[in-house]
Parts: sequence; C-alpha cells; structure tokens
Amino acid sequence: MIHMPVLALLDRLLAEPVAGLGGPARALLVTVYPVVLTALVLALSLAAHRGLTALGARRLFDLPRRRAHSNPEGETMPRIDAPALPARTQVEEAARVLSGRVVRTPVLHSPAIDRLACARILLKAENLQDGGSYKMRGAMLAVGRLAAAGHTGVVAQSTGNHAVAVALAARRHGLAATVVLPVDAAPVKVDRARAAGARVVRAGTTVEERLAVARRIAEVEGHPLVDAYDHPDVVAGQGSASLELIEEAARRGTPLDALVVPVGGGGGIAGACLAAAGTPIEVYGVEPVGCDSLARSLAAGRPTPVAPAPSLADGLRPGCVGDLPFAVARTAVRGVVRVDDDAIVEAFRLLLLDLKVLVEPSGAAGLAGALRLGEVAGPGGGAVTAAGPGDVGGTPWPSGGGRRRTVGVVLTGGNVEADLVARLAGDRMTAGVAA
Amino acid sequence: MIHMPVLALLDRLLAEPVAGLGGPARALLVTVYPVVLTALVLALSLAAHRGLTALGARRLFDLPRRRAHSNPEGETMPRIDAPALPARTQVEEAARVLSGRVVRTPVLHSPAIDRLACARILLKAENLQDGGSYKMRGAMLAVGRLAAAGHTGVVAQSTGNHAVAVALAARRHGLAATVVLPVDAAPVKVDRARAAGARVVRAGTTVEERLAVARRIAEVEGHPLVDAYDHPDVVAGQGSASLELIEEAARRGTPLDALVVPVGGGGGIAGACLAAAGTPIEVYGVEPVGCDSLARSLAAGRPTPVAPAPSLADGLRPGCVGDLPFAVARTAVRGVVRVDDDAIVEAFRLLLLDLKVLVEPSGAAGLAGALRLGEVAGPGGGAVTAAGPGDVGGTPWPSGGGRRRTVGVVLTGGNVEADLVARLAGDRMTAGVAA
Repeated sequence: MIHMPVLALLDRLLAEPVAGLGGPARALLVTVYPVVLTALVLALSLAAHRGLTALGARRLFDLPRRRAHSNPEGETMPRIDAPALPARTQVEEAARVLSGRVVRTPVLHSPAIDRLACARILLKAENLQDGGSYKMRGAMLAVGRLAAAGHTGVVAQSTGNHAVAVALAARRHGLAATVVLPVDAAPVKVDRARAAGARVVRAGTTVEERLAVARRIAEVEGHPLVDAYDHPDVVAGQGSASLELIEEAARRGTPLDALVVPVGGGGGIAGACLAAAGTPIEVYGVEPVGCDSLARSLAAGRPTPVAPAPSLADGLRPGCVGDLPFAVARTAVRGVVRVDDDAIVEAFRLLLLDLKVLVEPSGAAGLAGALRLGEVAGPGGGAVTAAGPGDVGGTPWPSGGGRRRTVGVVLTGGNVEADLVARLAGDRMTAGVAA
Repeated sequence: MIHMPVLALLDRLLAEPVAGLGGPARALLVTVYPVVLTALVLALSLAAHRGLTALGARRLFDLPRRRAHSNPEGETMPRIDAPALPARTQVEEAARVLSGRVVRTPVLHSPAIDRLACARILLKAENLQDGGSYKMRGAMLAVGRLAAAGHTGVVAQSTGNHAVAVALAARRHGLAATVVLPVDAAPVKVDRARAAGARVVRAGTTVEERLAVARRIAEVEGHPLVDAYDHPDVVAGQGSASLELIEEAARRGTPLDALVVPVGGGGGIAGACLAAAGTPIEVYGVEPVGCDSLARSLAAGRPTPVAPAPSLADGLRPGCVGDLPFAVARTAVRGVVRVDDDAIVEAFRLLLLDLKVLVEPSGAAGLAGALRLGEVAGPGGGAVTAAGPGDVGGTPWPSGGGRRRTVGVVLTGGNVEADLVARLAGDRMTAGVAA
C-alpha cells in the first residue's frame, strides 16, 4: 500500500466504512458521497480560478498553444511567401489569442431592417471595436507576433483604419510605428493614428504610391511592413470577427445561412471564408460600383486591378484585391454584389437612425449589399450584378412561404468625419424608418 | 429490498462488484465511477435544458416566484397608493422577468471619454434597447402584469419614449394601446408609436394637459393608465438597466463607485437608487438647467414643480418629479448636477463620433453630467450646482494620485430626428476627440 498512498487513504475513507453497512444504505452512500465530493472539487476549482484571475494570474489558464507566441524564439505563422494558405484553425487560433485583447463587439438586430431585407439580419458592430474598426483584430495579431519575435518597430500603409489599428497595436506592445497615409486621408483617421503615438507620413493617393514609400521606410528602419490585407495574420485576425458572429448567431438559436462582408483589399472576406469553412454558410462580398476588383478577379480567375471610381466608401477603393485574400476567396465566395452611393447612404441612415450606431460608409456597404441581395428575392428581382463561383442571379434567400433566412453582416468600422455625418444624416434622398 | 428498487439496483451495479475487488482497485473505482456518473448526469441535464429551451419551453425553468405574476388571480406588486416603497428585490425581480424579453444592452467604454472625465466611464447603451430607449423595461414589466391580470388594453402619456415603449409592450402582449403625446412631440416618436399599432392622441404641450386627456380616455375605455414614472413596475423596470450595469462592471473587475442617470420624472434615478441600495455606489442625477425639479425637491424636502425652461433634452422636461420616485430618491441620491445645452451637445458629439453610437440629447445629458462631475475634481473645480443629501461641491472622484474611480452612466435612449442629428453633428462649437 505504500506505493499508492492516496488511493489507500481513499480506500480507508470511502470503501471500508461503506463495505460494513447494509445493502441499501451502502448503495445510497456510494452514490451520494462521491457526488458531493465532485461538487466540492468543482466549487473549489472555480473559486481558485476566480481568485487567481482576480489576482491577474490569467496566464496560468492559457493553453500551451496560446502561450507559445509570447516566446521570443517561438515560430510564428507561415509568411506570405509560404505556399500554404491559412485555414479555419488559424482563425480559431486568432480568436483565442485576441480574446480579452480586443473588444468582443455586440451583435445587433432591428425588426425594421429585417423587414426591409426579407431576412433576419444580425449585425456585428465592429464600429465599436478599439480604434473604431475590425482592422484592430488583424493588427493586434500581426504586431503581437512581431513583438514576440523581437522586433522593435513596425511600418504600415492604408487609407486609414489599418494604419490607426497598427498604431494602437504597436503602442500596446511597446513598439514604434510609422504609418503611411494618402494625402487625402480622412482627418479623423490621421488624428487617431497620431493620437496613438505613430509617426504619420503622407504620400500620394494610390496604394502603389503609399506602398513604395512604406517599403522604403521599412528597409531604412529595418522594421517589418504589416500589409493591410496580404498577410496571413491580418486575414485570420479579421476572420475572428466573422467567427464571433457565427458563434453568437448559433448561440441565439438562429444559425447563419449567409454572411455578407464589404470588400476592399479582401482581408475581411478572406477571413470570413475561413471562418465559414466547413459550414453551410454562404459568403457574399460587397463592392462599390466601379471598385469591383474582387468581382472582376473571380470572373478572370486571377487578381485583376481596376482604376477605382469615386465612392463614398473610402475604405473599399484599393486598386486590386490582394493575392492571398484572392487565393482564399476564389473557391469559397458564393457571389459579389455591387452597390452605389445611394444604396450606401440609405444603409448608413438606417444604421444611424434605426439601429442607433454610427458606421462609416465602407462599413454600411455591407448592409447595403445585404438589402440588395434581399431585393433579388422580391417579385421584380434578379438584377444583381454578381460574379464568382455559383454566380448570383437567382434567389439568395426566399422572401415568401419559405423559412426566413438569417444573414450576418459585419459592420466593419465607424470612423467618419463629423461633416460627412451631418451631410448624410440630413440627406433627404431616403425616407426615415419606423420600428 | 422491494421497497427501494432504485437503490437496490444501484447496489447491484455499484457496490457489490466493488466489494469483490482488492483494496486500491476498489478505492479507485469507488472514486472515479461516481464522478463519471455525475458528469454524465450534468451533461444530460444541460442537453435537456438546451433542447427544451430551443423548443420554446423556457417557462419550465422559471422559478415559482417568476411564474406567479402570469397567474390571472396572482397578486401584483404594491399599487402606487400603497405605503410600501419598492426595494432592491423588486429591481432584481424585474431583471429576472425581463431577461430574454428585452435586449441585454452592451456596456461600452472609450479611452478618450475616460481621459476627459478623469475616471473610467462605463456606458450602458440603452439607446440600443427595443423601442430605442430604456423605457421599454418599465413598460414591458407593467404591461405584462396588466395583461396577466386580465386587462385587454392600456393607456399612457409621455413626450415620446414611454409612449413608444408602452405601444410596443402592448403589441407584444396582445393588448390595445392608446398613447397621448404632446402636439410638439418629435415626429420619430409619433411614427414609432403608430408603427407599433397604438392609437395616438395629440394633446397640449404640458404633462398636466396630457394627463387630463389620458385619464379621461382610461375612464371611458376602462383600461388602466400606465404612468411614465409614478409607478412601481416602471421604477423597478428602469432600475434593471442600472442593475445590469452594476453587475457587468463587477464582472469586468472594475466595480462601480458611482452611477450617473439623467432625470426627467425620476423613474430612472429611483430605479438606479434601488439597484444600488446596499452597495457603496453613489447615485447622481443630471437635470437640464431650468428643468431641475429633483434638485429643488431635494432642497425643499418635497416634490417641487418648476416651469421647465427650453432644453435640447426633450425627455427631461416634466414639470415635476413624481411622488414615488421622489420618495425613493430623497434619501438615496448623493447629488444632482445641472447641465446646459452646450454640455449636452458636447456629450452628444463625443458619443456619436468617438463612441460611434447615436444617443438622444436627453440620454447624452447623463454623460454631460459625468463630465461635469469630473471637472469638479480638477484644480479649478468646485462649482457644481447640486443639491440634496450630502450636497456635491467637493471632489466626487479624485483626478490625481488617488485610485481612478469607475463611473457608470445610463445612455437612456436614442430616438432623435435626422435633422437634429445633422445639426448637432455638424455643430462646430466643440472640437473633435481622437482616441
């Protein structure tokens, strides 16, 4: 018995006294006693967990996989030049790493929007994310891994939200940040990047001009460039917003049938495709009319640039979808819808006046696309100009007799100039909506 | 053994085979086997609960206390003429009844607002509530109990949000609703009440005029009048918003030190006082300058009417705080701050452009008050014009060396006209804020 002292003790405590009792009493004890012990162990474990969490010892409960990336020698995810595409597991891993480090944004819902869309619309309010957009997710993941790998600074370029997010993520990780913004960037985004402590460089108006400047800075300073969408951590990080939306919809008993995401460089929709992989959820992209690089790329079978037309959606105007996002999305996207400025303004006003949240035009484009897809279901429908595998043109979701479908929409960001809010809110082109 | 067949079976299954084994093996089995059984029973129970919940059989899990009020013969809460004041238990009961019937609105947070307020500000976004305001809570509770008591219709009067909430609550419970609104009511509130199926009657511009009309209608139709604040269910229902905020702050590890609530008729602040009862949380009210009935009532020791001055905060302009709310608040409120339209507009813009949510001026007044209380802590502070037990005038929360305090603010509603949004968003009187 010396080699098993714990079991021997349990034997003395439990089995022997029990064996001496009568049949039914013994059975009762044998059944009840360990149940009480189990409850006690559970309660003690929970209390210990709470106590340790309150003492800031959360790390103790990190899974080994989650702790790995804070190891300076640890291996990071595959680099962009690696042939392997990220998969759903990378999005799940991103969600785990980001849990508690970014806001778990609420999922909102409005009966009035449901009626207009002929579907149950669940809106993931990433405009309420730190930094005002879901770009914070990819930036926190990518910058966190670069910090863990020993880098002391990062460089980024974007029309605004990615730059703001990288600046904030760098500050949180104690890294220097240089961000390259276009000369016509929204002042609110420039201010936010500066407020986060980043050095702001203004260059040109196109992606190519900014990218050239950003690459030169990265080379001179010896700091890595965090691409706004052509980067596996960014794709996986952005995908965590879709994953949370998918999970929340299922938790509410209304699992998603479709997921609608605005498309700029494609990081968000690639992340959405990964998050929906292995589920029956159909993923749709939304592009402004004349900024439809993804739709054209899907039709051509390879990344196809466009000369972006003017659009209210300043965040959806890269000249070309990224290589990595395209590679992920090409076989996974169900379709792409194009929306014009009128549709974006209508969605903006619905979100502001009915749902009570401020979403930038690029973010409102997602709802505009969902409403457009809903129209197709109506009697006069069928006019959606979409492209891609399984071309849209039929009935994405039934409006009548059939079961009402649940559609998730990612409201990607909320950084808008006050003047533009005033102009769009006061706009008379669309009618108000009553609940 | 025939009289205890289950125990006999367990005895055969568990105890007898165990008794035949060697010491350590027996001890191991005795310990492990019931633990596994317990886990199995727990898992099966959870699965059954989920299955039944998904089938809409939630009622099965209602506590007897919670089910009582759906009994037509059941006794409801004390009426307004009863001497007993509602207590914290009524707010907890309200929160239980309302759980799953109204939105559990998110608690939002912004570093930029924290810096301005010299405190951690947690904002309960009741503008995202059904019907666009926290009035939905009291209305759902009161109308639900009237429906359970066999009534077939209800009457209400208010400047807007309470009427909208009662209309929606009546529709959900299958009751007819007549709501009396002022002739100068915000069109969006009139539209929303009508959209919810209520009969809308327009009468006068003051509470007294509307109340006279509403009482006549109630008498003619034989339907009860649901007062906008002088009603225990309404006070308890509104208090559930504060209770959720208090709980969420504690869950995040930053328990509230203070709670700031805008004051119209006093239902919200009375509910907040009840929710905070028995905790060290200090409750502050916020009134527009010239609409300070609560501050005057606290100073006079009895409900004291004012002739309400013009204010952007249309929901905070009743001529007098209610008897019941005053009775609850008089000994429980720490102080009242008064805010002018400039302060309300500044708070409105902060909430819109920094936090990304649309809050009506009456709701934004809460944040304006919290910022005003924060100013007192600064070097030039001390000018707060407050009244009540424990008159404010010192340092509500330390800005410097001391521990940073956590302050909860209830953003009570978000029903604003598009034109007003455009005017306030475009307003140049205050500067933008960067995160």
